[in-house]
Amino acid sequence: MSVETAAIETVNQEFYSAIESADLDKMTEVWAEDTADDQVSCVHPGWTLLSGRSEVLRSWALIMANTTYIQFVLTDVNTTVLGDVAVLTCVENILTAGEEGESSFAAGKVVASNVYIRTGQGWRLWMHHGSPVLQGDDDDDEEDGELEH
Amino acid sequence: MSVETAAIETVNQEFYSAIESADLDKMTEVWAEDTADDQVSCVHPGWTLLSGRSEVLRSWALIMANTTYIQFVLTDVNTTVLGDVAVLTCVENILTAGEEGESSFAAGKVVASNVYIRTGQGWRLWMHHGSPVLQGDDDDDEEDGELEH
Repeated sequence: MSVETAAIETVNQEFYSAIESADLDKMTEVWAEDTADDQVSCVHPGWTLLSGRSEVLRSWALIMANTTYIQFVLTDVNTTVLGDVAVLTCVENILTAGEEGESSFAAGKVVASNVYIRTGQGWRLWMHHGSPVLQGDDDDDEEDGELEH
Repeated sequence: MSVETAAIETVNQEFYSAIESADLDKMTEVWAEDTADDQVSCVHPGWTLLSGRSEVLRSWALIMANTTYIQFVLTDVNTTVLGDVAVLTCVENILTAGEEGESSFAAGKVVASNVYIRTGQGWRLWMHHGSPVLQGDDDDDEEDGELEH
């Protein structure tokens, strides 16, 4: 792994740590600044697109306020560096506490695309897009079957 | 709109036209080539991540083969150029024919993040991530309500 890739994946870990620890200050640091012309953007699973630091950070504050427990195990982390931009894709294996209390847990799987940009302060998050995985792991086999009809 | 942004949004239109007309050749042209180290990637709504031209184009062939009619009306198109990379976000307002025949239609909304890269042949698609919008348009108001409890 290159030094650059390692730096990006470290910031990516900080992003998910910020959610796990409901640390809005850390989350604020992870996101890039809006520019005069362009804004950061974020899609939470099942939500529509949010644009701009203010709206995006407000959504994270809302999620943190309504989450008693959340844990991420990232798999399939893949990082492509394209000049001053990096595209990181990963699968978020999520464990959350249900609303009934700590003895109830729910597991879920989200696929995420995270775009990072190089700034004077290091790599910062420009876009996060998370979407629910509704298919099973055996979808490849199912597709093969359909094609053979 | 800059010349660059116009060029990217033209390729983006070609991408959706390729789906509408089930034109796999055009779809093949729109996507960038994999490199030695990195691969293009694609997330269809509800699917997990697909990687590499071969797997991605195969999924489009499958979708085209199983779609009798599909029409996209794009809204909220926003393009950010970051050097040789562009991040385009948009809402796909989709009309499809139901399985029962042409008299049955279904409407849906998908939010998409499309990452384009500059190549010798022009801008090409490096990543497509589409996810279903499950919330209504009035989610902002609902969020306000929750925060005021």
